[in-house]
Amino acid sequence: MITGKNYIGFQQIANGNTTYKTFNSQLNNANEVVFTEATSSEINQAVALASNAFLSYKTMSGTKKATFLNAIADEILALDMELIKTYCSETGLLEGRAKGERGRTVGQLRMFANLVAEGSWVEASIDTAQPIREPMPKSDIRKLLIPLGPVVVFGASNFPLAYSTAGGDTASALASGCPVIVKSHPMHAGTGELVASAIIKAAQKTGMPEGVFSNLNSSGIEVGSELVKHPDVKAVGFTGSIKGGRALYDLAAKREEPIPVFAEMGSINPVVILPEALKENGSDWAKTYANSITLGTGQFCTNPGLLLGITGETLSAFINMLSDEILKIEPSCMLHPNIHDAYETNRKKASSQANLKVVAEYGSVLKDNYAKQTVTTVSGDVFLKNPSLHHEVFGPYSMVVACKDVEQLKHIISKLEGQLTGTILASNTEIENFPEVVSAMQNRVGRLIFNGVPTGVEVCPSMNHGGPYPASTDSRFTAVGIHSIKRWVRPFSYQDWPNNLLPDALKNTNPLGISRLVNNKQTHDVIT
Amino acid sequence: MITGKNYIGFQQIANGNTTYKTFNSQLNNANEVVFTEATSSEINQAVALASNAFLSYKTMSGTKKATFLNAIADEILALDMELIKTYCSETGLLEGRAKGERGRTVGQLRMFANLVAEGSWVEASIDTAQPIREPMPKSDIRKLLIPLGPVVVFGASNFPLAYSTAGGDTASALASGCPVIVKSHPMHAGTGELVASAIIKAAQKTGMPEGVFSNLNSSGIEVGSELVKHPDVKAVGFTGSIKGGRALYDLAAKREEPIPVFAEMGSINPVVILPEALKENGSDWAKTYANSITLGTGQFCTNPGLLLGITGETLSAFINMLSDEILKIEPSCMLHPNIHDAYETNRKKASSQANLKVVAEYGSVLKDNYAKQTVTTVSGDVFLKNPSLHHEVFGPYSMVVACKDVEQLKHIISKLEGQLTGTILASNTEIENFPEVVSAMQNRVGRLIFNGVPTGVEVCPSMNHGGPYPASTDSRFTAVGIHSIKRWVRPFSYQDWPNNLLPDALKNTNPLGISRLVNNKQTHDVIT
Repeated sequence: MITGKNYIGFQQIANGNTTYKTFNSQLNNANEVVFTEATSSEINQAVALASNAFLSYKTMSGTKKATFLNAIADEILALDMELIKTYCSETGLLEGRAKGERGRTVGQLRMFANLVAEGSWVEASIDTAQPIREPMPKSDIRKLLIPLGPVVVFGASNFPLAYSTAGGDTASALASGCPVIVKSHPMHAGTGELVASAIIKAAQKTGMPEGVFSNLNSSGIEVGSELVKHPDVKAVGFTGSIKGGRALYDLAAKREEPIPVFAEMGSINPVVILPEALKENGSDWAKTYANSITLGTGQFCTNPGLLLGITGETLSAFINMLSDEILKIEPSCMLHPNIHDAYETNRKKASSQANLKVVAEYGSVLKDNYAKQTVTTVSGDVFLKNPSLHHEVFGPYSMVVACKDVEQLKHIISKLEGQLTGTILASNTEIENFPEVVSAMQNRVGRLIFNGVPTGVEVCPSMNHGGPYPASTDSRFTAVGIHSIKRWVRPFSYQDWPNNLLPDALKNTNPLGISRLVNNKQTHDVIT
Repeated sequence: MITGKNYIGFQQIANGNTTYKTFNSQLNNANEVVFTEATSSEINQAVALASNAFLSYKTMSGTKKATFLNAIADEILALDMELIKTYCSETGLLEGRAKGERGRTVGQLRMFANLVAEGSWVEASIDTAQPIREPMPKSDIRKLLIPLGPVVVFGASNFPLAYSTAGGDTASALASGCPVIVKSHPMHAGTGELVASAIIKAAQKTGMPEGVFSNLNSSGIEVGSELVKHPDVKAVGFTGSIKGGRALYDLAAKREEPIPVFAEMGSINPVVILPEALKENGSDWAKTYANSITLGTGQFCTNPGLLLGITGETLSAFINMLSDEILKIEPSCMLHPNIHDAYETNRKKASSQANLKVVAEYGSVLKDNYAKQTVTTVSGDVFLKNPSLHHEVFGPYSMVVACKDVEQLKHIISKLEGQLTGTILASNTEIENFPEVVSAMQNRVGRLIFNGVPTGVEVCPSMNHGGPYPASTDSRFTAVGIHSIKRWVRPFSYQDWPNNLLPDALKNTNPLGISRLVNNKQTHDVIT
C-alpha cells in the first residue's frame, strides 16, 4: 500500500505540511494518494543515518552487498502488478513499457550484484616492498577503489524505474559501498515509494545498516537543494533537464567542500545523413526515423532531435518521406501535463523562428495531453545564426538542417553543444570519405552510431551513456553499465600496512581470487 | 640560452609589456634574465594552435606518442648542467635535489611512454552483436578512453621539474593525447623555459603537430584566468595552494561549459602516534619526524604538520625529544622570499593562538630567508575549538595535539579537512585495537601509512596522490602514477561501426595485442 510518506531509514515518517498528488495522463486526472514533502529535520535525519550506515556499509564484503542487490531485485518483482499499475497510472505509459523497464531495472541490480560478488572492480594494485633498493628503500604500497560516502540520487521523470529510485545511479552507488538518499521524483512518487519499500525490505532481510537507503518526497526544489548542500553528502547523481542539473552542479561547486555531481542532461543527438545513404535507403531511413523520433512520445534522452544533411534533391525527397511517415503514426500522451505544456511551448517557439519551415505537424489530437509530432527544416546558414535552434525540444520533435556543403556540415557539428550520441547514416563506401565529419562528431558526443538510431541504450560494459557538457556535467563517466560505479569511488593507498589488517582485495593470499595489478602485471596470483 | 620569451607552439614570442625576474634564494638576489608575460593575443594563439593540434594528435598511435615522450626525456637530460644550475639558482635547492628531481621527471616521462606504447590503458571493451536476440537484436558496441582536448597545466613552486613544465600533469596529458599549455611558474621561469625548449625540440624531432605544447610566462593571475576561461580549453591541472586551486576550480565551474580541474592543494598530513609505539620507539620516532618535518625546508605537500597523540607521560617525553631533535637540524633557505614571508606570517599567527605552547623554535638563522623550524603543542579541546589551527603552515612547522582520550582522537580526525596522507605509528599489536581510528582516518585521507613518514611519494602504479577536498578538488583521481592519465580522458563508444574504421584498440584483429574486455571477459584474443 502506498502511504505518501518518506522513508527515513527504515521508518515511514511524514511530519511535513506540503503535500502533492501524482497525475494519471491516460485518464487525464490526479491520482488519489497524497504525498507529504520531507521536512528539514527529516532530511537531516536521513543524512545522519546514511553517514552512520556508511561506517559499516563501506567495509561490507562484495558477497553481502550482492545479496542485498539481488534481494532488491526480488522484492521489486514481488511487487508484481501493484508496481506495474502504479507505474502506468503515474506516467501514461503502457504496461509493456512498464514491464520492459522493470526488466531493465532488475537486470541492472543483478549486473551490479555479479560485479561486486566477483570483486575485481576495485582495481586492486599492489607494489611490493624493495627494502634494499638504492638510494632509498621502496615501501609496500597497495591501492584499491573505496566508496565516497552518502550519495543523493535524483530520479528521471521519463524512466520511473530504470533511472529512478532503484535505477542505475542507486544500484551503482549501493554496489560501490555508498548509502543512497533518493530525492523522489514528484511525477511518479507512488512508483518511487513502492520501489523504496522493496529496497527497505531487502535491506532488513539481508541485515544492512539502517540508513543505507532513504526515500524523500518533494514537489519543489527545496528538499533537493538542502540535500546537495548538506556537508555530509559526498556525491550527487541526477538525470533530467539541463536547467535542473546545472542548478545542482552550481550548488555543489559552491560548497565549502565541493562534491562531484554526475548529471545526465539534455541532448539533441545529431544524425548526419550522407547522400549515398539516402540514395540507397532513403525511404527505409524515413520510416525508421519517424519511429525513432516518436518512440515513447519522443521522451527519451537519446531522441534524435537534429538531422543534418547536405542540401539537394535526395535530402528534399527524404524530408518529404519523413514528413509522410511521421504523420502516419498515432500520437500518444506525454508523461505529465507539465511536460506536455513545456513541449507545446518549446515546439511553438522553435517552429516560429525566422526562416524555418514546418514540414510536418500532426493536426488535431485525441486528448489535450497528446503530443503533436513535428518536423521542421532550416538551412545551415539559418541554423548557424540562430543559437536557439541548437536547444532540445523534449518530445517528438525533430529538425532537418540542410547544409550547403560538407564544409558547413563539419562547421555546424563543431558548433553543437555536447551530446549523448551522434549518428552517421552512410553507405559503406562513402563513410570512408568523411573522416573529418567523423572526427568532428567524436569531439561533441559520447557515443557514435553507424547506420542506426540513437534511441535504445543497451546495458552492457561497452556502453557509454554520457558525453561532453551539457550531455553530462562530467564526460569522464558513464551513467550506464558496470563502469558507472566509478562515479562513486576514489582510489586509496595503504603504505606498509600490516597484511592481516588490509581489506581482502589487497591481502597477499588474494582470498577473493580476483585479478590484480601486482608489480605492474595483471594477475590472479597470490603474493609469496 | 634562456630568452625570457613564451613558446607559442614552436615560436618564441614576447610582445607583452609586463616583465619580471626570478630570485636566487642562496645568494639572496634577483637573477638576470627578464621574462615577459604572455599577452591575450598570445594566449589565444596558443589555444588555437592546441585545438588544431588536437585533431591530429588525438589519433596518433601509442608508439608515436611514446617516441615523443622519450624524446622529451632525452632532451631534458641533454640540457645537462645548464638545467641543474638554473634550477638551483631559482629555488635555493641544492644540486643533489635538482638531479634527483630530474631523475623523477625523466622517469615519469618514460613510464608514460611505456604505458601508451603497450596500449591497454585505453580500457578497450567490446560487446559483439547478437542480431537474433529476442525481443530486440543487440548492436555491436565498443568502448575506449579518448582524450578530452587541450589541457592547461599550472606547475608547482616546490617541484620545478617533477610537478611543473614536463612534470606528471604534462606527461600524463600528453600521453593521453591532449595538447598541453603550461602556465609557467614565475618563481622558476628559467627552469620552465629550458624544459619547454626540450619539449619543443622533441616535438619537432618526432614530427608532432605545432601547438601540441606551449609555455606561457606569467607573474600574476591574469594569464591563468584567461586560459581557464577559454572555451577551447577542456581541462586543468594544478599543484599549489588551496587559495590558488580553489580560485581556478571556481572559474572553471562558472564557465558556460564547466571543465574538470584537478588541483592538488594543501595538506597537513595528520600523524597519529599511539602509546605503545612511543614506549617502544619514542626516541627513534622523534629523530625520524624531526627529519621529515624539516626535509626540503618543510616544503613538501606531504609534510607532517599535525601529530595527534593521547595525553600522558609518553607523549610529553616524545614532545621533548622531538623538540631537542628538531633544534639539532641546520636551518636552510626557502624557495623564494615570498614563500619565506608567508611562512613567517603563518607560523607567527599559528604560534600566537591562545592556549598554544611553542616547545621548539630555532633562534637566529644564518640568512633572512632561512626558515626557523618550529614545534608547538595544544590540547585536543583547544584544537577542536579553534579552526585556524586546522590549516597548513607551509614550511618546517608541526603541531602536536594532546587528545584527552581515544574518543577525542577519533572525533578530531573526523573534523579534519581532507588530506593527502594520514599516518599511524603503532606497535604491531596495538594497531589492531584501534579499528575506529583507522576507519576515521580512511574517510579523511588519500593514503594511509603504517609506521613511516608521509614525505616521499613513490612513483608506482599503486600510489594514490590526492584525497578528499581540499587535498584535491576531486578525490576520484590521483596526480601520481600511471592512473593519473585518467584525469584527461573520457569513455567513448562506437555502435555498429565498420571494423576497418575503428581505432586499432577496438579492431577484431587486435593489432595492438592489448588486453581487452570482450563480452565481459578480459582477454588478449582476437575476435573471429
